[in-house]
Amino acid sequence: MDTAPEPRRPAFARWLGTTNEVTRRFLGAGRIPGLINIAGGLPAPELYPAAELAAIARQVIEEHPGETLGYTPIEGLPGLRDALAARFSTQALKLGRENVLVTTSGLQGLDLIGKVLVEEGGLIAAQFPTYLGALDAWRPRQPRYRHFDLEDPGVDPLAAMHGAQFAYTVPNFSNPTGKLVGLPMRRALVEAAHRTGTWLVEDDPYGGLHYDGPPLPRMIALAGDRQPGQVYDGPVVYMGTLSKEVVPGLRIGWMIAAPAMIEALVMAKQGADMCTSGVTQRMALAALESGLIERLQPVIVEVYRARRDALCAAMAEHLSDWFEWEVPVGGMFVWAVARDPALDTDRLWSVALDAGVCVSPSSVFDSSGANRRALRLNFTLNPPDRLAEGIRRLAAALKSMMPPDRSRD
Amino acid sequence: MDTAPEPRRPAFARWLGTTNEVTRRFLGAGRIPGLINIAGGLPAPELYPAAELAAIARQVIEEHPGETLGYTPIEGLPGLRDALAARFSTQALKLGRENVLVTTSGLQGLDLIGKVLVEEGGLIAAQFPTYLGALDAWRPRQPRYRHFDLEDPGVDPLAAMHGAQFAYTVPNFSNPTGKLVGLPMRRALVEAAHRTGTWLVEDDPYGGLHYDGPPLPRMIALAGDRQPGQVYDGPVVYMGTLSKEVVPGLRIGWMIAAPAMIEALVMAKQGADMCTSGVTQRMALAALESGLIERLQPVIVEVYRARRDALCAAMAEHLSDWFEWEVPVGGMFVWAVARDPALDTDRLWSVALDAGVCVSPSSVFDSSGANRRALRLNFTLNPPDRLAEGIRRLAAALKSMMPPDRSRD
Repeated sequence: MDTAPEPRRPAFARWLGTTNEVTRRFLGAGRIPGLINIAGGLPAPELYPAAELAAIARQVIEEHPGETLGYTPIEGLPGLRDALAARFSTQALKLGRENVLVTTSGLQGLDLIGKVLVEEGGLIAAQFPTYLGALDAWRPRQPRYRHFDLEDPGVDPLAAMHGAQFAYTVPNFSNPTGKLVGLPMRRALVEAAHRTGTWLVEDDPYGGLHYDGPPLPRMIALAGDRQPGQVYDGPVVYMGTLSKEVVPGLRIGWMIAAPAMIEALVMAKQGADMCTSGVTQRMALAALESGLIERLQPVIVEVYRARRDALCAAMAEHLSDWFEWEVPVGGMFVWAVARDPALDTDRLWSVALDAGVCVSPSSVFDSSGANRRALRLNFTLNPPDRLAEGIRRLAAALKSMMPPDRSRD
Repeated sequence: MDTAPEPRRPAFARWLGTTNEVTRRFLGAGRIPGLINIAGGLPAPELYPAAELAAIARQVIEEHPGETLGYTPIEGLPGLRDALAARFSTQALKLGRENVLVTTSGLQGLDLIGKVLVEEGGLIAAQFPTYLGALDAWRPRQPRYRHFDLEDPGVDPLAAMHGAQFAYTVPNFSNPTGKLVGLPMRRALVEAAHRTGTWLVEDDPYGGLHYDGPPLPRMIALAGDRQPGQVYDGPVVYMGTLSKEVVPGLRIGWMIAAPAMIEALVMAKQGADMCTSGVTQRMALAALESGLIERLQPVIVEVYRARRDALCAAMAEHLSDWFEWEVPVGGMFVWAVARDPALDTDRLWSVALDAGVCVSPSSVFDSSGANRRALRLNFTLNPPDRLAEGIRRLAAALKSMMPPDRSRD
């Protein structure tokens, strides 16, 4: 046996040195006994329609063994693509199968759009702060970012998007801020996409989770208004998922876009996983066709609205000295900004973890890691009493770091 | 409505200009009525254990709703990782959970290894000719290739691997050539990986499909022999999948590697799809634990052996004037090389498609696209009579292109 010391292994790619481990810790933290996890974007598992999905799983494999157990077309099962095209069409927006790609989770869609549009150093215009998973998905392409703040009344979508490969937005209850982008800004973004030519990504995992009013028109529908009755060929790339409105475990998402964009995304998916599981695609189709989503939606909305209210009540009682926030009208998150710029939420994250609660520090939603003044708090995973206890623990951590009499300095 | 012409959209990434569409056409060709598809690497759908998998699907969702329908850890379900570690351990090779990553298909593993090891222009040493899916998976990283031919008795593994980020091999019944890499060359590759420090990827989708003798030791087991009883930390990265030995539709694969490599791959998977479906992971675990794979294996081997013999008999009758080949001892493919270097198999592919048979031209297995002298023929998808008819159609196409009296010039 050769016992000489081995030469060094080849270096890992540079982007690995730029990554963060917080998402992994979130997922891991869910399994620390006794810890209250208000960090992740996790749905309430007690709402999973397990019995119905178990029956669907058996039925789709028995009835469609070739389709469920074999390779499907890269683009997805034709029936599922047609059902999604029908679901998102409007009076003006005409979608066909050629506008739809099935993805293995919404996150895969972000990976694919990075692959087809971003060279190393390419420019992405991103709503700031930005969904952590999107930053992770694009890290291997090592992009540059231009941030724009859709809360800022002075933001100029034309300037933000000019020269970028694409603009990334989460208009419904943005992750992490929970904010709803209003109709005038939606129109302005679509107009800017048309005028600059830049692709406009509308990432919409939370669209069905609206608690205080009806949903606003999707940007892809606004883009469809420009070419009524023609097969959609606009600049908006719409992304959806079953993860937040049904269950995450199917890992089913979709992209709706101009046919040329779908063709490019298909080339990227061919080299990513060849196709999405036929089992989970057929289960998704059955969930769409059986009305399961429509039956679940009001139940989920009622539970999550009550949890949002419970979290915000506990925050009002325990956190007002240190933080300010708006009550979100949908989604999964409250975004709390420290009153005192000296409050470092990276440090708070760590102290709070020791106190038995896991939250999301704002640094993970900033591609530069510099934003350390806010927290993202989730209200969907835990019942009201656990949310209240989590906030009490967070307040205890805050007191140990920063006595309240200093916090309004 | 604004009717001014829109500005050009941003350019797609450069790698999209280097891709080929043949895999898509293969998958699409399976749906052209009457066409005989001997191009793809597709298993026989009549062997899918549909009733058993339908029952398993229902049971795992009913019994494990949180695990199947929620997010799983990025690395995969602990129970599935443990089962895979146990399955691939040997007397000397000691594998733990930290050596295992569950992937969404074998192909995803190739995407992930490209992401963690290849910068743009990075060097990959690849067994030539090379699996098309691997070339597709790495295209977005725009690597350089150094080819090495494991059939060539003069090949020098040390020279082939020196300075490469990793070496890519399919030692069991390589795709596309169907060749088995012998034990001396396996030892030489592992030795070269230790001496150069280069990672050695052992891609093994076909390992269970051996028709004429027992399997040879895996290279990862040979690497384990160097550190008996210690948790594996060697240079071989082993990749497997359920697609060829159970069904493709679960999209379940795995990577077994040194813990540091698994950690890097997990960071890449976090940005690729966050985690693999809990439904299909739990189904895979049930298939492993219930002995389903062991019950299926002899059935699959017997059917595929008979189909290999039928294909090779038809080839001997109809193709000997134009091609030569070896009968493969395992896997899914026969590799046929034209006797006449003037026979262009890209052209033959197209003429044969018009004659009602789809084959794989060698150009798609060459990163430069230059190799146009061979064909890959699949024998697993079709029953013997369809294989014979496919070969008759191929011979008719050949005759129309190149009369046999010229072929031995």
